[in-house]
Amino acid sequence: MTWDRFKSLYYTNSKLGLSVDISRMPFPDDFLTSMEPKLNKAFADLAALEGGAIANPDENRMVGHYWLRNPELAPTTELREAITSTLESIKTFAAKVHKGEISGAAGKFKEVLVIGIGGSALGPQFVSHALGRLKGGRDKMGISFFDNTDPDGMDYVLKGLGSRLKQTLVVVISKSGGTAETRNGMLEAQVAFKAAGLDYAKHFVAVTGEGSKLDQVAQKEGWLARFPMWDWVGGRTSELCVVGLLPAALQGIKIDQMLAGAAAMDAVNRKKSLRDNPAALVALMWYWATDGRGAKDMVILPYKDRLLLFSRYLQQLVMESLGKERDLAGNVVNQGIAVYGNKGSTDQHAYVQQLRDGVNNFFVTFIEVLKDRADDQSLEVEPGVTSGDFLQGFLLGTRDALSESNRHSITITVPEVSPKTIGILIALYERAVGIYASLVGINAYHQPGVEAGKKAAGSVITLKLAIDAALRAAPGTAFTAESLAAKLGQPAKTETIFKVLEHLASNPGSGVTKTAGKPWFESSYTRET
Amino acid sequence: MTWDRFKSLYYTNSKLGLSVDISRMPFPDDFLTSMEPKLNKAFADLAALEGGAIANPDENRMVGHYWLRNPELAPTTELREAITSTLESIKTFAAKVHKGEISGAAGKFKEVLVIGIGGSALGPQFVSHALGRLKGGRDKMGISFFDNTDPDGMDYVLKGLGSRLKQTLVVVISKSGGTAETRNGMLEAQVAFKAAGLDYAKHFVAVTGEGSKLDQVAQKEGWLARFPMWDWVGGRTSELCVVGLLPAALQGIKIDQMLAGAAAMDAVNRKKSLRDNPAALVALMWYWATDGRGAKDMVILPYKDRLLLFSRYLQQLVMESLGKERDLAGNVVNQGIAVYGNKGSTDQHAYVQQLRDGVNNFFVTFIEVLKDRADDQSLEVEPGVTSGDFLQGFLLGTRDALSESNRHSITITVPEVSPKTIGILIALYERAVGIYASLVGINAYHQPGVEAGKKAAGSVITLKLAIDAALRAAPGTAFTAESLAAKLGQPAKTETIFKVLEHLASNPGSGVTKTAGKPWFESSYTRET
Repeated sequence: MTWDRFKSLYYTNSKLGLSVDISRMPFPDDFLTSMEPKLNKAFADLAALEGGAIANPDENRMVGHYWLRNPELAPTTELREAITSTLESIKTFAAKVHKGEISGAAGKFKEVLVIGIGGSALGPQFVSHALGRLKGGRDKMGISFFDNTDPDGMDYVLKGLGSRLKQTLVVVISKSGGTAETRNGMLEAQVAFKAAGLDYAKHFVAVTGEGSKLDQVAQKEGWLARFPMWDWVGGRTSELCVVGLLPAALQGIKIDQMLAGAAAMDAVNRKKSLRDNPAALVALMWYWATDGRGAKDMVILPYKDRLLLFSRYLQQLVMESLGKERDLAGNVVNQGIAVYGNKGSTDQHAYVQQLRDGVNNFFVTFIEVLKDRADDQSLEVEPGVTSGDFLQGFLLGTRDALSESNRHSITITVPEVSPKTIGILIALYERAVGIYASLVGINAYHQPGVEAGKKAAGSVITLKLAIDAALRAAPGTAFTAESLAAKLGQPAKTETIFKVLEHLASNPGSGVTKTAGKPWFESSYTRET
Repeated sequence: MTWDRFKSLYYTNSKLGLSVDISRMPFPDDFLTSMEPKLNKAFADLAALEGGAIANPDENRMVGHYWLRNPELAPTTELREAITSTLESIKTFAAKVHKGEISGAAGKFKEVLVIGIGGSALGPQFVSHALGRLKGGRDKMGISFFDNTDPDGMDYVLKGLGSRLKQTLVVVISKSGGTAETRNGMLEAQVAFKAAGLDYAKHFVAVTGEGSKLDQVAQKEGWLARFPMWDWVGGRTSELCVVGLLPAALQGIKIDQMLAGAAAMDAVNRKKSLRDNPAALVALMWYWATDGRGAKDMVILPYKDRLLLFSRYLQQLVMESLGKERDLAGNVVNQGIAVYGNKGSTDQHAYVQQLRDGVNNFFVTFIEVLKDRADDQSLEVEPGVTSGDFLQGFLLGTRDALSESNRHSITITVPEVSPKTIGILIALYERAVGIYASLVGINAYHQPGVEAGKKAAGSVITLKLAIDAALRAAPGTAFTAESLAAKLGQPAKTETIFKVLEHLASNPGSGVTKTAGKPWFESSYTRET
């Protein structure tokens, strides 16, 4: 932590507006050079990916999120054209909505409700909060989200919208149209529009794969608009395609600047010299900190309220990309890096106690934002000291306190939170993830483990229907979980049957009632009709 | 995971409304009995704590959060009286605010702005979201937070309030009155009130230690009201004292039911028989999962939108309580358990990929809520299947998928999200933390590591003032970080001086300008006057 080490390792690019300090990661002197062969392989992998290789072999897909901000890179004219014309159509659509040329039942749209999950919600949520209410202005539209299949959660959002529902534009985002949570949210929203006497088709927009089920429905029902999702953009890297850009443009965020920031970052991250490549520096630090096997957690601590959701965004980007059972050669490796964090200095009052004194199973990434506030009013909270000075003081102080007790950290600095720097941060982490995946030899672009949970959920739904049918077939009959399991010929599923029965009995609309038994597993469940 | 194991281990208490399933934690048969001696010690420790022992020896304090919901337990008449009369004064105050008998510059208060950090924000934020907009009703008041010293973050909240500032009641929460973030937030809010031509004293309420600096200011300036914070309630267990109850009552949440839920949970958690004590079961599972040394992370996955912030609340409660360098005997143990999570099924689309396939360094706690929605409308999203059925299906399916790949989980079930069940969940985890701390022999009630960061922050602020003074003393002189460090006689602080100069130059109000140099460390910084 001497000034000499800092000086020799500090990456700073004033034109871009990004600095990366790795001096508080005490890797040995030969670490960076020792990694060069692996790193060169990673650079070659990324170059091939950008050139249109099938970088996601399991799904036989190209991985094209870097083209979104630099269409010239795209491997075919068709792709180039699709990217540029879609961007234009987003901007045109948003402008018409803002002018009221596209409007709803009660005139001008004032609210956007985004229905999506995972990559189709986390990016838009992060960006909406990071870049909303910038520079004194109000946002062009308010924004809210259905990001789950929780009925009460949707009711909560609808209550928040209240009578503004009639001025709400709904953006349904689902590549296949088959994601259950999004489909359910769409159906629940449609019911709410109908209940308010509104023709939902005049309020709904689809963002989906061309020809998908959702696309067909939207076309048939005459929705306001349809925008494409491409199979060469994965969910967790979709913030800079329609998924992220449409909600952002509607909110009034300068999406061209986000794209420009990401493009500028990408250009730098293509440099083959490690010391000029911040994404490579970051990826190598992950590798060193975690032994290239996720041995430590990644704690993300931005000292800026607007970046509160960045850690949640990165949780998806990093963990879904890197958390893999097998490497590309098929060996079981159980890779991944756990990511968590919220914001400083707030988190100092939550868990920095453990970071400083407790189990040393993490490294921190501090994110520093130099500009304190838009209007540069500098109230002195003490003589000569502003709130922003305190914010920086807490960041630097905490960093020192952690270093003192041998807890390591990276520090990333940006001049301000703006569309450009958000584009930079997104692109920095996308590339770092890609490089790290190459270093440890995994496919960062698939998510095979997600299927197991979906499949298991499907079998629970199937069982639920069988339970329903059995109860209906014997009205007035009281079943215990065990007797129902026997009747269904599924004794191995008794626990699931018990859980489903408890759920049914807790929701009167199901028609199932419970009679408590002693012991608890003698409780019985009945349908009267 | 057979039904027999589930049956034999399931804890359920229908009167309370809580079930705990530990059957998916594959501890050996003799584990529970082997822990009995340690557990009995923990029960004795907790009994002593509840009896008024100095359970926080370092700070020579009693630990009395259990008395808050059962004042009869408090060791003296004075304490009992303080708890009950304060609860009455909260309810009276909230009722008067709701009726408009206590009002502000523009009549009835419609908004609450809570200014606090750590325990003085996380609990109120969690509860506000969990219990807002319940059962069709609108909340009595809107609620927002200053929970940091980020100037832009405060501007963001103030922009959200807009002209409603004049109808805003401000609750400033700080035990000592000396927490910098809260003090700064208070000062920034006062400036906003003044700028709007409002007398802030007519809008401000203090929640603070009797006789504290804040208490004195509030009294002198004639604030609307003052409420006590007691030194025997720690920040992370303060949700059920004024800190949490006053904001909740103002929002219109039934605080008596929260207290009743917690009291009922406490009564159960005092049982000396492990199998009848859910907090002990949970604490033992933490011990088994983490080898009693934080070897695995705790992932909290409530399948309910309203419980989104529960993991963040628990992050503080668990990590600040358990993340300790030394045990009670003074040995270096570096204890703690890392906590993260958001909500299901949303997180399935973010990081369950890694949980299922990646590095196996965690155990999950699923939180299941049986009731789907308040009004029990059950739209069928597919024949015979509701959105709520899908939510349960995803929970059970994910749990199965994790079990299959040897990832362990606890499941906690509550009938609904209500003031009572929130009280239950808070009390369950408070007690589990207390028991676990006893099992591993640490003081759960202090936070010595937080001081180091604060102290280091203070020295950054001191350095900032010295830098300011040096620049002012030599107007027009360009300093590099190195030359200024030399002038200040602090070459060891060159990095911090550089960081402070960069921050100053990014905020025009500071009067410091930067001239970029090549290489970067030749950049210079000047004040003209």
